[in-house]
Amino acid sequence: MPPTITAFESSPDRGKGHARDMRVRWAFEEVGQPYDVRLLSFAAMKQPPHLALNPFGQIPTYEDGDLALFESGAIVLHIAERHDGLLPKDANARARAIAWMFAALSTVEPPIVELAMAMLFERDKSWYAERLPMLQDRVRARLGELSRRLGKADWLDGAFNAGDLMMVTVLRRLNTSGLLDEYPEIAAYVVRGESRPAFKRAFDAQLAVFKAASRP
Amino acid sequence: MPPTITAFESSPDRGKGHARDMRVRWAFEEVGQPYDVRLLSFAAMKQPPHLALNPFGQIPTYEDGDLALFESGAIVLHIAERHDGLLPKDANARARAIAWMFAALSTVEPPIVELAMAMLFERDKSWYAERLPMLQDRVRARLGELSRRLGKADWLDGAFNAGDLMMVTVLRRLNTSGLLDEYPEIAAYVVRGESRPAFKRAFDAQLAVFKAASRP
Repeated sequence: MPPTITAFESSPDRGKGHARDMRVRWAFEEVGQPYDVRLLSFAAMKQPPHLALNPFGQIPTYEDGDLALFESGAIVLHIAERHDGLLPKDANARARAIAWMFAALSTVEPPIVELAMAMLFERDKSWYAERLPMLQDRVRARLGELSRRLGKADWLDGAFNAGDLMMVTVLRRLNTSGLLDEYPEIAAYVVRGESRPAFKRAFDAQLAVFKAASRP
Repeated sequence: MPPTITAFESSPDRGKGHARDMRVRWAFEEVGQPYDVRLLSFAAMKQPPHLALNPFGQIPTYEDGDLALFESGAIVLHIAERHDGLLPKDANARARAIAWMFAALSTVEPPIVELAMAMLFERDKSWYAERLPMLQDRVRARLGELSRRLGKADWLDGAFNAGDLMMVTVLRRLNTSGLLDEYPEIAAYVVRGESRPAFKRAFDAQLAVFKAASRP
């Protein structure tokens, strides 16, 4: 039996592929491995059966025989360690690819999520107009640094690897913010990731879930 | 030659051990490996020589022969993969320990950093009093979930491992917030981590740097 992951029964992003199951789906597609998906309602995510898999009540989780994992970063790394296609063979290059995974999640994603959360939940607050530029500037700082490192290269460090996979999924959350347009190298990098056949298969799979859920 | 890491020349937390070099120092101490430290001013962190090591201009970095890494999570994982003492031998337990590392950095740390940033940079803003409880509640949500999973156990999943190391260092940033007192199991877990001889050696090493820098 293939591994089973969990995903939103009805994705809050309406099929844009910003939910974190997208990363895991993409990883499976890059390494050419099948997977099953179990869909969860928001209520079910906070119930004991799912909390046993992920104490924070989030998706995605990963189950394969005796092993249960949570955290998209850990699941992608686990897939990358077991199958060819997402980590370089050279030990040093492999360690650097993993460093980029952590950079995507620990350094680049937090200000992006903070901006997204404010745009979702603080839009009607008195302080929104004053805080928004501050949050945008925090994101810009990271995009500028990333853009300077990337330069004219296609990928962050040699061939496409799990570090790029995580970084592209993190940056995609800015697709509707307008900020990516200020950094053409980064915008092109995201499009480069989205153009990979494995990305497209993963994207279509999560979109199909949303379309099925929203059918009357 | 032992690996070289970078750390703040003058730690902004005045030696409380909240800077991210603490995680790497602790990891080296747990596995009993020596390391060298190169201290950096805030100005030097944003200059080309350091940006070549870490494009985001942060500490810590790690250099060992031909290999240069950044991101505390990646460095701790690299140390844990090369030396006994931080990852279980059993493959499934090892994958779960890595999942807890990612959970510490991706799920628990961001709301804690967001609260800390607001307390540092938004204290004089008109919205501070209204936003603070919201930020505290986001942290409380994670602490509650973590507390329910930890229960009466000493560590997150079996024996102490790299997942606990990362989680304890993330939670320690709440030491002066008062929030840990609301979750006695979490407070005791943090103290348990801080009581390990390897933690104490790492803590003393970073404190010595701060004391040397603040000497007139």
